[in-house]
Amino acid sequence: MSFIPIPADCDFTLANIPFGVFSTATNAAPRPCTAVGAHVLDLSILSSTVFPQVLKMDSAAKICESLRSTTLNAFASLGKEARVAVRNAVLEVTKNGSQWQGEVEKAMVRMADAKMHLPMEIGDYTDFYAGKNHAFNIGTLFRGPANALQPNYIHLPVGYHGRASTVVVSGTPIKRPLGQTCPPTNATPNFDQCQKLDIELELACYVALPSEMGTPVDIEEAESHIFGYSLMNDWSARDIQAWEYVPLGPFNAKNFGTTVGAWIVTDEALEGFRTAAIENSAETLPYLREERRRGKGVFDMELEVLVKPTGGNDFSKLFTVNAKNLLFSFPQMIAHHTITGCAMRTGDLLGSGTISGEDKTSVGSFLEATQNGKEDVDIGGVKRKWLEDGDEVLLRGHAGSGEGRVGFGECAGTILPANWGRWAKVQGQQKA
Amino acid sequence: MSFIPIPADCDFTLANIPFGVFSTATNAAPRPCTAVGAHVLDLSILSSTVFPQVLKMDSAAKICESLRSTTLNAFASLGKEARVAVRNAVLEVTKNGSQWQGEVEKAMVRMADAKMHLPMEIGDYTDFYAGKNHAFNIGTLFRGPANALQPNYIHLPVGYHGRASTVVVSGTPIKRPLGQTCPPTNATPNFDQCQKLDIELELACYVALPSEMGTPVDIEEAESHIFGYSLMNDWSARDIQAWEYVPLGPFNAKNFGTTVGAWIVTDEALEGFRTAAIENSAETLPYLREERRRGKGVFDMELEVLVKPTGGNDFSKLFTVNAKNLLFSFPQMIAHHTITGCAMRTGDLLGSGTISGEDKTSVGSFLEATQNGKEDVDIGGVKRKWLEDGDEVLLRGHAGSGEGRVGFGECAGTILPANWGRWAKVQGQQKA
Ligand SMILES: [Ca+2]
Ligand SMILES: [Ca+2]
Ligand SMILES: [Mg+2]
Ligand SMILES: [Mg+2]
Ligand code: NI
Repeated sequence: MSFIPIPADCDFTLANIPFGVFSTATNAAPRPCTAVGAHVLDLSILSSTVFPQVLKMDSAAKICESLRSTTLNAFASLGKEARVAVRNAVLEVTKNGSQWQGEVEKAMVRMADAKMHLPMEIGDYTDFYAGKNHAFNIGTLFRGPANALQPNYIHLPVGYHGRASTVVVSGTPIKRPLGQTCPPTNATPNFDQCQKLDIELELACYVALPSEMGTPVDIEEAESHIFGYSLMNDWSARDIQAWEYVPLGPFNAKNFGTTVGAWIVTDEALEGFRTAAIENSAETLPYLREERRRGKGVFDMELEVLVKPTGGNDFSKLFTVNAKNLLFSFPQMIAHHTITGCAMRTGDLLGSGTISGEDKTSVGSFLEATQNGKEDVDIGGVKRKWLEDGDEVLLRGHAGSGEGRVGFGECAGTILPANWGRWAKVQGQQKA
Repeated sequence: MSFIPIPADCDFTLANIPFGVFSTATNAAPRPCTAVGAHVLDLSILSSTVFPQVLKMDSAAKICESLRSTTLNAFASLGKEARVAVRNAVLEVTKNGSQWQGEVEKAMVRMADAKMHLPMEIGDYTDFYAGKNHAFNIGTLFRGPANALQPNYIHLPVGYHGRASTVVVSGTPIKRPLGQTCPPTNATPNFDQCQKLDIELELACYVALPSEMGTPVDIEEAESHIFGYSLMNDWSARDIQAWEYVPLGPFNAKNFGTTVGAWIVTDEALEGFRTAAIENSAETLPYLREERRRGKGVFDMELEVLVKPTGGNDFSKLFTVNAKNLLFSFPQMIAHHTITGCAMRTGDLLGSGTISGEDKTSVGSFLEATQNGKEDVDIGGVKRKWLEDGDEVLLRGHAGSGEGRVGFGECAGTILPANWGRWAKVQGQQKA
């Protein structure tokens, strides 16, 4: 129990204690924070006032210094011990009757007054494709169910390198991309605004401990390299992707923007919600076999996609998906990613791939829900095949309930119109 | 003519003035430099001594400050005017009879005493596939000449996002990667050391001026976003690639290491060597049409691949390729990369893709030269299908000759053996 009020159905209970980076109108410097109820706690303040007295360990000064930074990278690089110590310190100083209440209140900011920033400086961003139902749905759409999954799919976590420069925090608007598309009936490509703008509902993790180039991370140690988890929306331009992706994979269809939630939820908070991943029909190679977490590699969390159509007043829930629908765990992704000797740096971002369940309403993309634009989805009475300008998308996700609820907060983004007028002129085309 | 001696056949004439970052045994701090003859000139020293007096412009103090940094990012972000001013200042203070000779000599370090570093902090690394002959050679190998190029190939510069964490400077050893491979005769994949370790001979450019997310870079302005050019070796694990790359492209086959040359050669130095790219049979869309550089989009430079086989005494020249063998120019790559609104940051690295000519000795990879391991190449009497442990690879490249020669210096790397013993044990396999 805390002297900080925690509203009902709040993602930020005392069971959570996520990490983020915020600033305020009166102090524009981004700084680390946690969330309790409807408040942000300024960890840069606490690390100068109460933490030096509460953290009883040799590394206390170093931990406090890491929390007076503009990102979480320095703190994350200190690993699990520091993370757990700060978590416990937050719980101690915010509890009812805490001797530190006065100091903590000086570090409290109403969430509505906090501007959230990208929580980490991301060196590299990798997106996997471990949502087996999603991969099966997509494969079925384009190649039929018999050939839906490629032969490699069950043996390794398929992934590709993404674009770090356009990873943005929840709330950042996403401008509709321009590019080349080439419908099957065309002899040559069109220049156009993306007509098949989509989302991808994903979980992501951030790297805490780096690994050296040339040194693979052992599967049993991979979890210790993770700082925590976040929601991610891997916006996707399906028409651009269909034309460009052979033979080197998605490129411009993805690099215009990827939105991450503002809050990083730790393993400590999610420990009680571990469950089994989708069973793999293949016996994976030993470097991918995680004994320690056998049957507990992923998280039993409810993820949701909500959309408020342009001009509408309300968000409607479109899809609900359980986060456990992955064939590979994040530690398996890290073990695979580094088996070549690829280096990981603190702050690297790894996406799970789109997560879908087994039926039509438990999907993570419009591509699946509309069968590549052949059917409509209904958003509170408004019909959509793909996202339109002005549509607002909200991802949410949580585990547990009541005082034990642990959630990510929101991962939100609104579609802005493309600069079509200017580029149509460059193209010598009429404005559409 | 300079008071600094310039040996015959030197890449670093007064026509060049490339930029790099170095340190020395007595001063371990990385700092910007240029190269003249067999010497490195410490630009951090010159920016504190002679440049404040020689640079006659309002931004002189800012330029000097940018040269007292650990990378070239701050300097590059100042754009062409600053770059040209420093180039001209170097030429002025190093000429015969220069009043600054005494000060310049204090900034001179023998190249043999300079340890070179990665010249820029690389935010994102993208690798294109614009070497049309290479793409045709590879396509022919796997799909026959009629279907060698995919339909999109001539319409857009095909590319994929690469891994920035393992981009290393010339001279850094490259450890043979481990991973999954699956020969066609296998039912399930092997865990193995890479058996088809290859090079890719590429040019690369670094981004100087950033561009905002949501704002495409106009093709006519794209060149102004480039800081300069470098050699690049995109080490490739062909057996890992063959198994993993469907459907999302190369991933682990590439992320174990990419080597760049230590020196960035500017547009100013290469201006006289511009020539026409490979003629495109397609009329490209207007956003990719560069009028200003029509017929002069690429560089007429001789690129070479040399190898010293393990245990050998000498490098043998294996391949010689002209750098003009590209279907798209770097400005076209930037215009395409950003047409979606993808943001560019100062220091971003763009590879051209492997460059090959039209015959068997003018190729940029073993994959082409050995027809995917079916034939041998002869390296001074030693036979190779792929790289072996201990082999040393050297890329070189230059344009012009004598006092007008402009070159990149070396892009070198030696293959270290994989940690096979340890991982064979993890795998429960016998050591091979
Ligand atoms: Ca994705
Ligand atoms: Ca390449
Ligand atoms: Mg994306
Ligand atoms: Mg590479
Ligand atoms: Ni619930």
